[in-house]
Amino acid sequence: MAVRWFYLSALTLSSLGLMCILFTVYWMQSWHGGFAWDGTIFTFNCHPVLMVAGMVVLYSAASLVYRLPQSWVGSKLPWKIVHAALHLMAFILTVLGLVAVFKYHNHANIANLYSLHSWLGITTVFLFACQWFLGFAVFLLPWASVWLRRLLKPIHVFFGASILSLAIASVISGINEKLFFSLKNATKPYSSLPGEAVFANSTGMLVVVFALLVLYILQASSWKRPEAGVVTERQLLLQLVPSQPVPVTYVPVTVGQPYELW
Amino acid sequence: MAVRWFYLSALTLSSLGLMCILFTVYWMQSWHGGFAWDGTIFTFNCHPVLMVAGMVVLYSAASLVYRLPQSWVGSKLPWKIVHAALHLMAFILTVLGLVAVFKYHNHANIANLYSLHSWLGITTVFLFACQWFLGFAVFLLPWASVWLRRLLKPIHVFFGASILSLAIASVISGINEKLFFSLKNATKPYSSLPGEAVFANSTGMLVVVFALLVLYILQASSWKRPEAGVVTERQLLLQLVPSQPVPVTYVPVTVGQPYELW
Repeated sequence: MAVRWFYLSALTLSSLGLMCILFTVYWMQSWHGGFAWDGTIFTFNCHPVLMVAGMVVLYSAASLVYRLPQSWVGSKLPWKIVHAALHLMAFILTVLGLVAVFKYHNHANIANLYSLHSWLGITTVFLFACQWFLGFAVFLLPWASVWLRRLLKPIHVFFGASILSLAIASVISGINEKLFFSLKNATKPYSSLPGEAVFANSTGMLVVVFALLVLYILQASSWKRPEAGVVTERQLLLQLVPSQPVPVTYVPVTVGQPYELW
Repeated sequence: MAVRWFYLSALTLSSLGLMCILFTVYWMQSWHGGFAWDGTIFTFNCHPVLMVAGMVVLYSAASLVYRLPQSWVGSKLPWKIVHAALHLMAFILTVLGLVAVFKYHNHANIANLYSLHSWLGITTVFLFACQWFLGFAVFLLPWASVWLRRLLKPIHVFFGASILSLAIASVISGINEKLFFSLKNATKPYSSLPGEAVFANSTGMLVVVFALLVLYILQASSWKRPEAGVVTERQLLLQLVPSQPVPVTYVPVTVGQPYELW
């Protein structure tokens, strides 16, 4: 059951993440003429795609690395490297997404960073940069003391989820703003819900559903690396990876933070 | 130290929450002519104030009830009632906030529920309603089995934080949308960052900071009700409430979910 549940969740999340990106690409391709990198409006069209791909989908994949049962045994170092590398790729896509909008604004003589969407977006990217560099310096490089790691780990975990939440607020306000711009002088305005509006609104709601699932898995105790010496049902997944030794014997204990009933 | 830290946090949160409401009132009063309940644009002006007050500030206060050390001892029932009652008040303010915008739209012949802001907002309020009724039926009424409570508690806690996150995304997209509307034909457009834009953008960022602090306190283990039989430093706060008996002896144990270092 745990095995089926894990693969079902992984499949659902991957499909939803892919759909978020493809829907954004389709929106920009079908209603806004596609993509370019020449400073025109087609350069702007790269912005939503790169932000959804980098700041939401790849960011989520990078955050979920420690929820793979394969990461629960053996050395953590390779998984730290995967975690940091995927986040770095997410960050690069995000920065390219910012470059796209600045390039278009400068080309079209439009002011940068005036809307609340842009204020929140740039703050989110700034927090992501701080999070990555602090995570790299404290958790990947070997020099930080155990005391410092213990102090910063809950903060790192909290900001990991918070940055994703802020990214979602930025994406929602961004899609909303773009629709008000692009349907301003349309024969069918936003308020009459033309095809583009329904499609882009649905894309926004899809991004929200994807992010909620990611946040749920991030915080659910049954998805976390179990404590040493006990094996959860989910760890039986490791037996499907032949090269991975399972260094503990089976103890039928449910792992997770004990909680009192309300 | 714990005592000072607790009161500093409580003071900071209360001040920030109050500022969120007052800033929204000031925005609507100073730049949009104040409030009414007659279906005109002044009715719409109640919408942002009621949503920030209900869906963000009072919702947060209600969610944080179990983070008060006074709620950690004795029967949980009175605190459950406070939690449910405050959430009900938050829900009533939220519904009034919805009524304000529907009333204005119907009066001015503007379509309802077309923008992504409204889709996400109405979904958030719907989730809030489900959360309240399910919480009331399962955790406050005495009929639910221990098994059901144990099953639903992590889901209730997760959706508690998620609904706040979705409310923030709704508030941010709402402020952004309102500024694009109200500054559309202004002599100083949104892109030139007039006083209203700077003020309302700052209000949005203030709401984000407030919500992040609330979410941090909600998930931090040191703010949670300790397990039976151990006392944290923070519980010494209870000694400042003379009528509250402390039913356990002091054991110098740090409470919280153990975590392994990265």
